[in-house]
Parts: sequence; C-alpha cells; structure tokens
Amino acid sequence: MKLLKDRIVKDGKVRAGNVLKVDSFLNHQMDIELFGEIGKEFKRRFSDREVSKILTIEASGIGIACIAAQYFNVPVVFAKKTQTKNIAGDVYTGKVESFTHGRVYDIIVAKEFLKPEDKILIIDDFLANGSALLGLAKLVKDAGAALVGAGIVIEKGFQEGGEIVRLSGVRVESLAIIDSMNEDTGIVFRD
Amino acid sequence: MKLLKDRIVKDGKVRAGNVLKVDSFLNHQMDIELFGEIGKEFKRRFSDREVSKILTIEASGIGIACIAAQYFNVPVVFAKKTQTKNIAGDVYTGKVESFTHGRVYDIIVAKEFLKPEDKILIIDDFLANGSALLGLAKLVKDAGAALVGAGIVIEKGFQEGGEIVRLSGVRVESLAIIDSMNEDTGIVFRD
Repeated sequence: MKLLKDRIVKDGKVRAGNVLKVDSFLNHQMDIELFGEIGKEFKRRFSDREVSKILTIEASGIGIACIAAQYFNVPVVFAKKTQTKNIAGDVYTGKVESFTHGRVYDIIVAKEFLKPEDKILIIDDFLANGSALLGLAKLVKDAGAALVGAGIVIEKGFQEGGEIVRLSGVRVESLAIIDSMNEDTGIVFRD
Repeated sequence: MKLLKDRIVKDGKVRAGNVLKVDSFLNHQMDIELFGEIGKEFKRRFSDREVSKILTIEASGIGIACIAAQYFNVPVVFAKKTQTKNIAGDVYTGKVESFTHGRVYDIIVAKEFLKPEDKILIIDDFLANGSALLGLAKLVKDAGAALVGAGIVIEKGFQEGGEIVRLSGVRVESLAIIDSMNEDTGIVFRD
C-alpha cells in the first residue's frame, strides 16, 4: 500500500534494536484519514471472504480495527491484556510475549463474544515475532470459530512471525512488509 | 441520546458495587454502527467549537474517539497507562485512580503530540469519579493547550466526578447520565 509506505518513510523513525517508531500516525497519535484508507484496503483484500466479526488486541489495534470495521459492517472485539493471576468469569485465554516490552502477559476475551458460528478477521498494527497474532488465533480456535485471516498494517519481514503464522495456515495480508531497516540506511520494503 | 439510553437498558447489566456492564456493545465488544451515531452526536454538541485534536485514554476510549474523530476531521491521541516507575522521554504525565480496579496508575502523552496551539476535545466512555478526566485535563493544561470540553458516553450521575469536573470549569457533554441504578429496579436516567 503505497500511501502507507510513503508515510512510514516520511514519519517513521528507526531506532536501535529493530524498533520502528510510528507513534506520530499509527499507535500513539492516530491519523484517522490514513486509518480510513487502511480500512478500505483491508476490505479490498478480504472482499472474497465473509467476515462476521473483527478481533484485535488492546491498545493500539483498537483504532485501526474500529475504522476498518465500518467497511465490513461488523462489530469489533478486543482482547484484553491482563497480569491478573486469577482470571474470573467465562473467558478464553492465551499468552502473548511482547517484542517491545520483553514480557509475557495473558490475553482474554469473554466467551460470549466469540461463537462457533463466527468468521473472524484479526486486525493488528504490527506483526513481528508473531506472538500476538498466534495468541489471538488460539482464542478463535478455542471458540471453535473460523479464522478468515489477519490484516496487519506493518509486518517486520526480517523477523520470523510472518513465516510462522503463514506456515500455520493463516492467511496474512500485510499492507507494508519491511525487509530491512537501519538507522543510517533507512527502510527497505518487500515488493 | 435516546438510541444510546435504549441500548443501555436493553443490553447493560447492573452489578453489585455500582458496576454497569456494557461490554457487549461499548467496551469489550464494540458496536461500530452505534459508535458512528455517538460520534455524530458529539460533533453536533461541539459544533460551535473549533477542535484540532481528540484526546482519549487507553483502552476503551480509543474506538469511540477514532470513530468520532471522522466527524471532526482531526487526529486522535491516546494517553497510555503505565506502571513503569521510570518514565523515559519527553512526556506529560498524570495520575488516574481506576474506579473499577481500585488502583492508581500513571498516564503519559508524548509532548510532541500536545502543543500550546491545540484545541483539545477529550472523549471517553465513562465518567464516574472523574479521575481519568481530571488526569487528561491536567495533561492538556501542562501542554498549555486549550481544553474545548469533554464528550462522555455514559456518566454515572450518582458519583461525584461530573460535578467536580464541571465545577473546575470544563464543559462536559454526557450522552447518557445515570441518576441511579439497581440490580432489581433497573436504571434511571437524568432528563
């Protein structure tokens, strides 16, 4: 998606440790007009598939998922991150390891919001080590729902997440795949 | 806002301890069509004011803020909750006490996303003890920006937050104000 790649080049900041800061338009300040174009592109890429619900994870996936959901005419459910030891109630749970923060947390979704008849599209801002996406896919599987695929805004193609998730059989559509990035030489996208 | 009040009566669940569960349409599963109507109503109520940016707080404020932002044609910034002791970088900080979880956490916004020339509209899902809203208002004040007002989806009118925030001079527009609620007798809205 050219508009997105141009924006990453213009406003993204590459930092040591393979960190890409896009907090001026994607995950702290959010450019809602850009989100609209991202939502339309997700709809275009998954226009061949029926979707009954979008699943994302707090916090930075929520905005993109909500804007995209307007083009699918479906509700959004977001998985909650929790460090609570005792998880109460009827919930599906999974574990996610954060690339940025280097710790493991539990994610939960109330069972009433993921049903066997659901056709779930996962939407998230980043795909790096794949942990969040695999965690969300597990919730969908536990619910007995169908996983239509995953729409990702930025995939770090030099990390193993994309390959692991695709090999597991999940259709992944990433709007920008970064093959390499470097503070000095900049960002190289996959064609 | 009648559509919202009807939905709260239909799908909201009153629980002990003045807890109102609206997680089937507002803050876990999100009804994006309803969010569109909420966004339009916020725009209608603040149509007399210039807004340059919407500020909200993770996680459940983000979806509503993003959908509403489409009607204001402005970006959204969300304050991040953190329990990190050492907050790095150039950020405005505040403290918020969670009514639901009964603990205090820090909130932060990067300074580059709140400027003295900004005219900020705060959007959030709930107003109860007012702590989140006062915390967000402090960030706006610290930035030297103008606070246009606050758009709230559900105000618990029987708690003191609304009065405290209004007495502090902030214009608050709540789409549904609950004067009392009870597991047996139901919900009473303010006219």
